[in-house]
Amino acid sequence: MDTYIDFRSDTVTRPSAAMLEAMQQARVGDDVFGEDPTVNELEQLAAGMFGKAAALFCPSGTMTNQIAIKCHTQPGDEVICDADAHIYQYEGGGIAFNSGCSVKLLPGDRGRISAEQVQEAIQPDDVHRASTSLVCIENTSNRGGGSCYDITALEAIKETCTANHLAFHLDGARLFNALIAKQQTPQQYGNLFDSISICLSKSLGCPVGSLLLGPADFIKKARRIRKVFGGGMRQAGYLAAAGIFALQNNIQRLQQDHIRAKAIAEALQGSTYVKQVLPVETNIIIFETQGLSAHELVAQLEADRILAYAIAPQKVRLVLHLDITDEMVDRTIHSIKNLK
Amino acid sequence: MDTYIDFRSDTVTRPSAAMLEAMQQARVGDDVFGEDPTVNELEQLAAGMFGKAAALFCPSGTMTNQIAIKCHTQPGDEVICDADAHIYQYEGGGIAFNSGCSVKLLPGDRGRISAEQVQEAIQPDDVHRASTSLVCIENTSNRGGGSCYDITALEAIKETCTANHLAFHLDGARLFNALIAKQQTPQQYGNLFDSISICLSKSLGCPVGSLLLGPADFIKKARRIRKVFGGGMRQAGYLAAAGIFALQNNIQRLQQDHIRAKAIAEALQGSTYVKQVLPVETNIIIFETQGLSAHELVAQLEADRILAYAIAPQKVRLVLHLDITDEMVDRTIHSIKNLK
Amino acid sequence: MDTYIDFRSDTVTRPSAAMLEAMQQARVGDDVFGEDPTVNELEQLAAGMFGKAAALFCPSGTMTNQIAIKCHTQPGDEVICDADAHIYQYEGGGIAFNSGCSVKLLPGDRGRISAEQVQEAIQPDDVHRASTSLVCIENTSNRGGGSCYDITALEAIKETCTANHLAFHLDGARLFNALIAKQQTPQQYGNLFDSISICLSKSLGCPVGSLLLGPADFIKKARRIRKVFGGGMRQAGYLAAAGIFALQNNIQRLQQDHIRAKAIAEALQGSTYVKQVLPVETNIIIFETQGLSAHELVAQLEADRILAYAIAPQKVRLVLHLDITDEMVDRTIHSIKNLK
Amino acid sequence: MDTYIDFRSDTVTRPSAAMLEAMQQARVGDDVFGEDPTVNELEQLAAGMFGKAAALFCPSGTMTNQIAIKCHTQPGDEVICDADAHIYQYEGGGIAFNSGCSVKLLPGDRGRISAEQVQEAIQPDDVHRASTSLVCIENTSNRGGGSCYDITALEAIKETCTANHLAFHLDGARLFNALIAKQQTPQQYGNLFDSISICLSKSLGCPVGSLLLGPADFIKKARRIRKVFGGGMRQAGYLAAAGIFALQNNIQRLQQDHIRAKAIAEALQGSTYVKQVLPVETNIIIFETQGLSAHELVAQLEADRILAYAIAPQKVRLVLHLDITDEMVDRTIHSIKNLK
Repeated sequence: MDTYIDFRSDTVTRPSAAMLEAMQQARVGDDVFGEDPTVNELEQLAAGMFGKAAALFCPSGTMTNQIAIKCHTQPGDEVICDADAHIYQYEGGGIAFNSGCSVKLLPGDRGRISAEQVQEAIQPDDVHRASTSLVCIENTSNRGGGSCYDITALEAIKETCTANHLAFHLDGARLFNALIAKQQTPQQYGNLFDSISICLSKSLGCPVGSLLLGPADFIKKARRIRKVFGGGMRQAGYLAAAGIFALQNNIQRLQQDHIRAKAIAEALQGSTYVKQVLPVETNIIIFETQGLSAHELVAQLEADRILAYAIAPQKVRLVLHLDITDEMVDRTIHSIKNLK
Repeated sequence: MDTYIDFRSDTVTRPSAAMLEAMQQARVGDDVFGEDPTVNELEQLAAGMFGKAAALFCPSGTMTNQIAIKCHTQPGDEVICDADAHIYQYEGGGIAFNSGCSVKLLPGDRGRISAEQVQEAIQPDDVHRASTSLVCIENTSNRGGGSCYDITALEAIKETCTANHLAFHLDGARLFNALIAKQQTPQQYGNLFDSISICLSKSLGCPVGSLLLGPADFIKKARRIRKVFGGGMRQAGYLAAAGIFALQNNIQRLQQDHIRAKAIAEALQGSTYVKQVLPVETNIIIFETQGLSAHELVAQLEADRILAYAIAPQKVRLVLHLDITDEMVDRTIHSIKNLK
Repeated sequence: MDTYIDFRSDTVTRPSAAMLEAMQQARVGDDVFGEDPTVNELEQLAAGMFGKAAALFCPSGTMTNQIAIKCHTQPGDEVICDADAHIYQYEGGGIAFNSGCSVKLLPGDRGRISAEQVQEAIQPDDVHRASTSLVCIENTSNRGGGSCYDITALEAIKETCTANHLAFHLDGARLFNALIAKQQTPQQYGNLFDSISICLSKSLGCPVGSLLLGPADFIKKARRIRKVFGGGMRQAGYLAAAGIFALQNNIQRLQQDHIRAKAIAEALQGSTYVKQVLPVETNIIIFETQGLSAHELVAQLEADRILAYAIAPQKVRLVLHLDITDEMVDRTIHSIKNLK
Repeated sequence: MDTYIDFRSDTVTRPSAAMLEAMQQARVGDDVFGEDPTVNELEQLAAGMFGKAAALFCPSGTMTNQIAIKCHTQPGDEVICDADAHIYQYEGGGIAFNSGCSVKLLPGDRGRISAEQVQEAIQPDDVHRASTSLVCIENTSNRGGGSCYDITALEAIKETCTANHLAFHLDGARLFNALIAKQQTPQQYGNLFDSISICLSKSLGCPVGSLLLGPADFIKKARRIRKVFGGGMRQAGYLAAAGIFALQNNIQRLQQDHIRAKAIAEALQGSTYVKQVLPVETNIIIFETQGLSAHELVAQLEADRILAYAIAPQKVRLVLHLDITDEMVDRTIHSIKNLK
């Protein structure tokens, strides 16, 4: 796929030379014994950024989310989330499989749910009903086209959670995009959420890995669940080194991805085959096609050596990331304008 | 509650003198050893009615449904059903708890889903997604106000299931009401569904018990799950005797419940505090209040010694059953007309 | 099986005329609404006997045990019990199926484990290991031949549990036999255990039912699990009435079963085909055969219209109960002496 | 720990310069899309070695084992294994947590079970019992001191599995040590087992990773379970490159580890503080202490900058691996002879 411009996902990035160098130089040890210095450093670095006591390095964001859900619930509980949430749509049915939990799916505004919706969704204390115990939000929202929450909206949900003794988990697969777009800080999020999952392998550009952040006793419990899933790795420091590099070098540059995404969206907006482009807030562009199906459009782009993703019969997604250059953006805009 | 007219549910019925006599006379044995002759007789009677090879007597309809879901699925599978389905709304989160399965909830027409909806809801073969393996329908639909399926609609769903290798289960908690209302036969249902759950303790008037019907190997598997849930009972013949009595004596009389339900609905229709009554097809009446909340209306009825159930902030449900007499219906209609 | 003398289990008993009369007269209601007065009375009666705050009526002892295990644990926990425990051997793999828990099986003394064994079996705090959270004992022990614990042995285990923050559950399927044999009181057991399961359908002679006893919040949680298993029954008062009758009338008479069991054991002891009889402490006799297999011996007894149970290739079990008369015991002893 | 001689486990190894170079040079892609060429190459290489159709790269051997158990079973099934098996002792209670399965633990000969034991352990077809569906063996056996199976013993178990419709899984965390010690071939194992788990991060010296091998449809199912556990990684080719290097370069050299292990064992054998050394067949040495506890002995070794592992109150384990040189072995033998 090397001569293609790959907008299918920000998971497709490959480490830069500098990141690869950092990986190569990593000091490693057996992380199952807690002895990998680089993993330990990464965990402390991330926890510190968010003002959390501890962190846990895992092979994927699905694992950090699934561990969090497991740690916050008992089988028979119910999890409240947006109907398009990654945890429900794209984690293999894990909420039920791993945690034995039901879901209450809310119709959000481009993936964002409100405190009022959460309040109404809480089950009464009745043996017929599952027992609500956890609220999960996703920021930015993937299926919402990279939409972000205002901090006040999150504070309102947090209040509802506190008043109803519900845990509050953040699927922050692309949280750094939200922080940059909304000029928010990790500390603000650390204060609001009981647990936070962040991915290193999406817009931050690492090859593998995610982190789960939370209080010390929560992360201790999480470490048990990671083990039983088989997520404990040995000399994981090579992967962790990339994570440290990314947290230190790849956050501010997300602004460029957002600017580029807006430029491409603008080009799409004027095209005859585009019915509507979702507002672009971060690095994701989702648009509806007209006159041709999403699959047809994706095929036409592929003929131009541009890769995109049909996420619904009439919906196409493009994702910006650090392997996309200005030149590629220009070529893409040119292609968009000349399609059909 | 003895001087009240109790419309809260058809589960509140008490055995008639004749049914109680049948229970008293029952020959019993240890059903865990397969030696209770009355349980065996009931299971054969019910299986035969529906043209199924075998049946299993259980303490409740929740258990027969949950066993069926478990037998048709693997953890990580997904079950398609109406968003208001009893199996999802009122069985304690059992789909996830007992079977580790996800749900795909469809917005049905008064609880009834269509073959087209089922077709669209089937997950693609993708590791990110749960794996669709079972379709469940509820007939009559409780939250749909006792609505029933046409046989052609069921045949269409069956075709979709067959084409996609999906199992098809019927939650027939009130199936006999549907059979009477639609002039359908048990054999028709036996032909369409892989498994059927029927309740004896609702409109049929038994104190306790439900039956799960299916092929011999399915019921053998079901017997294992009943054991692990703790649903195996010893001298259950006393309860089974009531079931035999009910299948032989209490089905045709359901027509009366339906006629009475329509009469009450008519009275409600004209009332100022009623916004809308759902079409009454069987023994359930659901209506929306206006000017006062469901709870307020239920309280006013209770002051008249009439018990109803607030199923939503503005929705009230009344259920007819064999402990409701014509005289009680008259008194209820009188009360409805004089409220407020 | 009516002309046979049935020693296969004390579960095979049928209600006496007086018990059946009590069932017939029972006042009933919908127990799912908490409105069955007879169920409520039984639950209060049993809870009071043991000095526990609350009780829950269930269809079987398997269900009461499985609910207790679920309420005391989280998936990934480990349960300590005797290797022959009913909860592990005969409940369909329920510890893993219903609760996702591992077991640590101890080689007890005729089914009885010691505080020292429990102490050694507790897992270290290590992510590789399951997490010990519950100790279950069975009294009397079925596979131990009806053996009973001394109260001091139980107190020692209780201390170990308390010191290690472990819950302590009693599978008291035949607890009343132990109470009679050891002249202990229900209150002593209520003080020692976090939860207690007692069966009404074994030596107490009821057709169906068991009770789970515990603190109010524990029983509230248990009620949820009963629902999700499908163990909630409607007019269960007919079954509960038998339970009340049994608790009031059938406990002291267990002494007779114990005396009769000893008489039969004595007859066996002298027989050439008997290698060894386990000490008889209550109503169960287990003996090892020699010269012929357990199945062969059971067949020979059956030819004399006596039913026994081969529980292992060389082991036979006989259980006394209230449907066994002195005359039947005499006939059995005569048969034993003339076998072979 | 860099100046220590680390015998605690063969998981502590760090990649050699050559392996690290291979990692650095790896071509990578997004493995969740199936596009990482190096992962694909490793999976094909390993599958081919064993004559299996497909393979799946996972973050750990716990994950490959747990996925295999899940794929071969249904909740409520029972798994037969040695009482000391890693899958039961050291995978966090995963058999119950992930698969809802019970275990039948056999007392093996240094971790090795026999066909006769397996045959006797199969549950009868009885609803009271869990349902036997899988036999797992571990070769070499970790807790058995690196003991290996003869191929005839495995063939006998395979026959028993086939005759009883049981799946047969190999936990081959250290399989290559067994192959070298017994002069067996991967193909022989591929023929015998339905699925095989091999670790790259133990004696083969990779930083991270294990492989699950099996038929194509089995691995397809396994890929789903890997996703739901969160074991799907993105640019995992860096890790896979180490695996390819190890399979091509690090197998034959295991002989040296075995020779060194025997040399150390010989030194131990003569020591006053050693009661008994388990026969050394591969790279693991387990011995019983006398006169002092395992912890005391480990502390004394640590004072000499030698790390060992107390696996029981009187048992110490040492594991040879590729970061142990001849010089280190000499120093260790010297230390052993001068202890006390």
